[in-house]
Amino acid sequence: MHSESKPLGEFDLIQRFFKAGADAMRSNNEKVLALGIGDDCALLRPVAGEEIAITSDMLVEGRHFLLAANPELLGRKALAVNLSDLAAMGAKPIGFTLAVALPKVDTVWLDAFARGLFAIANQYSCPLIGGDTTAGPLTISITALGSIPSGKAIRRSGAKVGDDIWVSGCVGDARLTLAALRDEIKLPEHDLKQIEPRMHNPNPRIELGIKLRGIASAALDISDGLLGDLQHILKQSHVSAEVFLEELPKSITLQKQSAAIQNQFAATGGDDYEICFTAPIETRSAIDAISKELNLSLTRIGSITKKVDETQRLHLLNKYGDLLDDAKTVELLKSFDHFAK
Amino acid sequence: MHSESKPLGEFDLIQRFFKAGADAMRSNNEKVLALGIGDDCALLRPVAGEEIAITSDMLVEGRHFLLAANPELLGRKALAVNLSDLAAMGAKPIGFTLAVALPKVDTVWLDAFARGLFAIANQYSCPLIGGDTTAGPLTISITALGSIPSGKAIRRSGAKVGDDIWVSGCVGDARLTLAALRDEIKLPEHDLKQIEPRMHNPNPRIELGIKLRGIASAALDISDGLLGDLQHILKQSHVSAEVFLEELPKSITLQKQSAAIQNQFAATGGDDYEICFTAPIETRSAIDAISKELNLSLTRIGSITKKVDETQRLHLLNKYGDLLDDAKTVELLKSFDHFAK
Repeated sequence: MHSESKPLGEFDLIQRFFKAGADAMRSNNEKVLALGIGDDCALLRPVAGEEIAITSDMLVEGRHFLLAANPELLGRKALAVNLSDLAAMGAKPIGFTLAVALPKVDTVWLDAFARGLFAIANQYSCPLIGGDTTAGPLTISITALGSIPSGKAIRRSGAKVGDDIWVSGCVGDARLTLAALRDEIKLPEHDLKQIEPRMHNPNPRIELGIKLRGIASAALDISDGLLGDLQHILKQSHVSAEVFLEELPKSITLQKQSAAIQNQFAATGGDDYEICFTAPIETRSAIDAISKELNLSLTRIGSITKKVDETQRLHLLNKYGDLLDDAKTVELLKSFDHFAK
Repeated sequence: MHSESKPLGEFDLIQRFFKAGADAMRSNNEKVLALGIGDDCALLRPVAGEEIAITSDMLVEGRHFLLAANPELLGRKALAVNLSDLAAMGAKPIGFTLAVALPKVDTVWLDAFARGLFAIANQYSCPLIGGDTTAGPLTISITALGSIPSGKAIRRSGAKVGDDIWVSGCVGDARLTLAALRDEIKLPEHDLKQIEPRMHNPNPRIELGIKLRGIASAALDISDGLLGDLQHILKQSHVSAEVFLEELPKSITLQKQSAAIQNQFAATGGDDYEICFTAPIETRSAIDAISKELNLSLTRIGSITKKVDETQRLHLLNKYGDLLDDAKTVELLKSFDHFAK
C-alpha cells in the first residue's frame, strides 16, 4: 500500500523485512515452535525432558557499534552475542525475538540488516518468532531461547577444586582491532584484515557448548574480558584459581605485539565471544577429541585451586609458575564495564 | 565496593537494583523456574502439557514516554504492556527478562523504576529472570514468558462467522489523557485525575485471559486502537465484521466530550490495553458470569458477519444499524502507527 517515497508503517516494516525470513525458517524447529511471528505472543511446545534457556542482550548505537557500522554484520552480530550465551549453557537454539528502535526507515539499511540477521539465524536454525519495531535511537534488543536436556545445562556455579580451566579459540583480537581502529596501535592493513572479523563477526560456539554437556563443570562466554568473566565462575562456584598468564591462546597477529599488550589484551580484552570452561582432569582426552572434531583449538590456561578463602580468588602466574604481584593482577582485572568508563 | 560519588558499574546495577527483587520472587514460580538471574541464561523447566508464550515490547524515551515521566509508573507500565500480550493469549505469567539502556546512573530514578517494576511483577507472580544493562538513550526492552495448557492459547486466527465481538473495560481514556496533556482538549483537573491512570498505569487483564480459555475464539490486546487492532483478528481469521460505533464502552469522563471525540477516541485511541475478543453466541451467559466474578465490564460491540470478500472487512454501524459511509470508516481506521506519523 505504501509507495517508496512514503514512510513505511510499523506493520509494513515487520511484514517487509522480517516476516518472510521468519516464515521461511518456521520448518526448522517445527516440533518445538507452535506459533511464530504475527500474534500477541509466540508459542513454544516444549519437548518432554528438556529445559528452556533464555538470554537477552541489547546493542546500542554509539556504545556497541557506530551508526556507520556495516548493517549486515551488525544484524549478524546482534544475534551472535545472544547465541554465544546459549552456547555457554550448552543449549541448542530454538528461536529469538527482536525489538528494534530505528531513527528512520532506511530500506537499504534494513535490507542489509535483515540479510545478516537471517543468515546467522539460518546457520544456527534459530528462527525469528516475534518482536517489536518502533521509532527511536538505533537500539537492537534480542532475546534468544534454546533447549537443553533437563539437568544438563552448564552453569557458572559448578567448578570444582582440581578442575582444569580451558578457553576456546584465541582471545584479545577484538580488543586489538578496537585499538587499531582507535589509532591507539598502528597495525599493518594485512594484520587488521586478519583480525577484524573477530570483532565484527564473532562465531557463537554452539557446537562446542552442546558437546561440553556432561564434560564441563562450569562455563560462560567471554564478552567483557577473560579474567573478569572468569571471576563470575569463581564467585558462583566459591573457588579460587591459578591462571598462567602467558599461556592464554593468542593469534599470530596479536603475538606480533609487545608482551605487555599481548597479556593485557588476551586477559582483559572484551568482545571475543569465546567460551571459558572448567572440567575435571580426567576429561582432558575427551576435550582434545572435541577440539579435533570441531577443528577449534581448546587451550588449558590454569586450574581451580581451592575453596575460596580470605585472599583474592584469582592468582596469575608467569611462565615459571611464580605468582605475579597483586598490583599487576588488579590492573589486569579491570575488565570492560559499560558504566565504569 | 563503590561509594555513592563513583559511577556504578554494570554488575553493581543488576546486583543493587534488580537482583534482590528477582531473588525475593524466585519462590513464586519455583516449579517452572529452574535458574534465575546471574548466569549466561535463565532456565525454565516446562510443565508437561503446557505451552510457553513469549512476547517482546520496547519502550523508548521521547516516543512512548517523556524523560520526566514518573519512573515508578514507567517501571510498572513497561512490564504491564508485555503482560497484556500474555493476557490476550490466555497465558499465566512465568517470568520476564529486562534489557535497559540508561543515559546515566541515577540511583533515585533506578530505585523508583525498580519499585514500580517489582510491584507489578509481584502482583502477577512474574519474577525477573535475566537481563542486560548498558549505557545509552533511555530504552526499556522486556520479554515476558507465560504458560498455557497445550492447545488452549487464544489466537488471532480463530474468529468464526456469527461470533460476538467483545471488549473489556472501556476504551479511549488513554487517548483523552494524551489530548489533555497536549492541550488539544481542555479537561477539568478532576476529570484528568479520573482518567490519567488509564494512560500511565494500565492493568493487564491476566485473570480475564485465563478465564477466556476455551470460551473466546480469538483475542488480542488493544495497544494501537480498537478498530485498527480488531482488523488483525479479521485478517488472520479471514472474516468480516460489523461494529456498532456508538456501543463502544466509554468512561463517564469521555462521555462528557462531543460525540465525534467520543467515537474517534474510543474507536482508534491507543494505549488502553484492554482485551478485544470474539466468542460464539452460546457463551454469552458464561461471559456475563466472568464479568461479574472479575468485577470487570465486558461489552458486546458487534459481530463477525461473513467470510471475507472483495469489500472491506470492517463495517461500522450507527445506533440504528445503518452502515456508516466509507470515508468516515477509513478516517477512523487510521490507527496509531509509530512510523506513519
